Amino acid sequence: MSTFDPIALECLAAIIEEGGFERAAQRLNVTQSAVSQRLRALEAQVGSVLIVRSRPLRPTSSGQMLLKHTKQVRLLRADLERDLQELTPSSQGGGREEERIAIAVNADSIATWALEALGPLARQRLPLEIIADDQDFTQEWLRSGQVLGCVTTVKQALRGCRMVPLGAMRYVAVAQAEFAERCLPRGLTQHSFREVPFVSFNRKDDMSAEFVARIFGLKRVSLHQLFVPSTEGQLRAVQAGWAVAVLPELLVRAHIEDGSLVDLAPGSSLPIALYWHCWNLESAVLNALTDALIAGAGAALA
Amino acid sequence: MSTFDPIALECLAAIIEEGGFERAAQRLNVTQSAVSQRLRALEAQVGSVLIVRSRPLRPTSSGQMLLKHTKQVRLLRADLERDLQELTPSSQGGGREEERIAIAVNADSIATWALEALGPLARQRLPLEIIADDQDFTQEWLRSGQVLGCVTTVKQALRGCRMVPLGAMRYVAVAQAEFAERCLPRGLTQHSFREVPFVSFNRKDDMSAEFVARIFGLKRVSLHQLFVPSTEGQLRAVQAGWAVAVLPELLVRAHIEDGSLVDLAPGSSLPIALYWHCWNLESAVLNALTDALIAGAGAALA
Repeated sequence: MSTFDPIALECLAAIIEEGGFERAAQRLNVTQSAVSQRLRALEAQVGSVLIVRSRPLRPTSSGQMLLKHTKQVRLLRADLERDLQELTPSSQGGGREEERIAIAVNADSIATWALEALGPLARQRLPLEIIADDQDFTQEWLRSGQVLGCVTTVKQALRGCRMVPLGAMRYVAVAQAEFAERCLPRGLTQHSFREVPFVSFNRKDDMSAEFVARIFGLKRVSLHQLFVPSTEGQLRAVQAGWAVAVLPELLVRAHIEDGSLVDLAPGSSLPIALYWHCWNLESAVLNALTDALIAGAGAALA
Repeated sequence: MSTFDPIALECLAAIIEEGGFERAAQRLNVTQSAVSQRLRALEAQVGSVLIVRSRPLRPTSSGQMLLKHTKQVRLLRADLERDLQELTPSSQGGGREEERIAIAVNADSIATWALEALGPLARQRLPLEIIADDQDFTQEWLRSGQVLGCVTTVKQALRGCRMVPLGAMRYVAVAQAEFAERCLPRGLTQHSFREVPFVSFNRKDDMSAEFVARIFGLKRVSLHQLFVPSTEGQLRAVQAGWAVAVLPELLVRAHIEDGSLVDLAPGSSLPIALYWHCWNLESAVLNALTDALIAGAGAALA
């Protein structure tokens, strides 16, 4: 089995992560021609093109495999640095910008419990990079090797990965009090849901339709939808009387309690189970991340 | 000049927007084979492939051009519906789910002034779809025909588009009070900025580095960075003592006033000019969007 020049691997990763040769050169503090040269050497060694020179640049399948490998090596190196730092705490090795620990987390978790869970690690200067995506899609980031772990609704583990259940996030349907009184005087019913718009995260997000279908026992529903691609933005859109939204109960609890928002289907909530998937590597950093997420989820989720 | 079957065009748009043939069929309430048939007919008419059948599906250049055309036709149709609705208000034509009005807005504007600006239109049931991206990249969405307008930092207008300056968003460097006292007892200086981590939106976001370079007159700086891809998430990471962040003054003003956050470089702020770009079409919907954004930005921005 051939070994790869770690400098060339980091160069490949920099090109992909920064989205271009020029920015990669800046990050690595080398010339652009050095970047091209390292990439070509790696491509010659592998015997295939690793990056499609399109706009935007994207890795080929081989490029993706090498990127994943590079990230796994980085993780092991982060472990090593932590160990070394414990031996000689003054060396302050953590936080080298290139060695990012990337994980994908669904946007609703970022908006509610996940940042708090990761707080202790962030304050220890673990160079975290969080990637946000819809909960059904974060696993794609893990599959493609771009992150070392993900919080997702998908239960099925990927090959070479392990999975830990985190508990369930409860979703409730809410509207601004005045909006609810005006547009839904009888609450959300089998008939009234067609009369109001729903605000969703984006087109990939079918939480609202799933919620409505579930509580009324319908097979498939089609809703009037608005899209605001931010969890907090959705909340503000609801507060401003744009629409109904199906949001994490954790996010809206205080607003329901103070009466500014109304729970439109009291007693009905949609539980969405969340799972943490990560590479099956013995790594102190990975274990610390896993422990922190389990603890945070345990405190916040059902 | 050939005309295109609008049903086939909507079918093409549905495939691209929903990311697949099956979901497109669901949205259009037809069978999957009807979707394939319509697409093939359109491809035969154009004489080229319109969609690359990869995972994820993506439009070819011709496909993108047709998508843009479809969206422009939609916009004109939305105008027509508005006009018709004014004539016969009872018909309640607005809000057909397929006819989305998509615009790209930078995440920091969504988190501060933009939703409020769009509120009146949303409450009139304009079927808005907001796409969030980094401010330097929203224009790509317009260029590729996926949105009809964008809020961006790029001044240069695209061909076939018009541009309106919106004013400047002011960014300031902040940290949690206790974190600032512990890690930056003398504030942010030419020396101390290397000692602390900065939390940024994602790799494409170079606001922190630009801010530091600007206030200290440096050419290029490299920072210890953490990444949290949510404006409000960055704020919460700062509040939790993870790091320093360079954030819109609009977002942090109240927290600086109540003493929970500290302005690390009082008197220094980075103004970022924002521009609204949209297709140069005579359209009442487009004019209403433009007017709403100009008014909202005028009230909130410098």
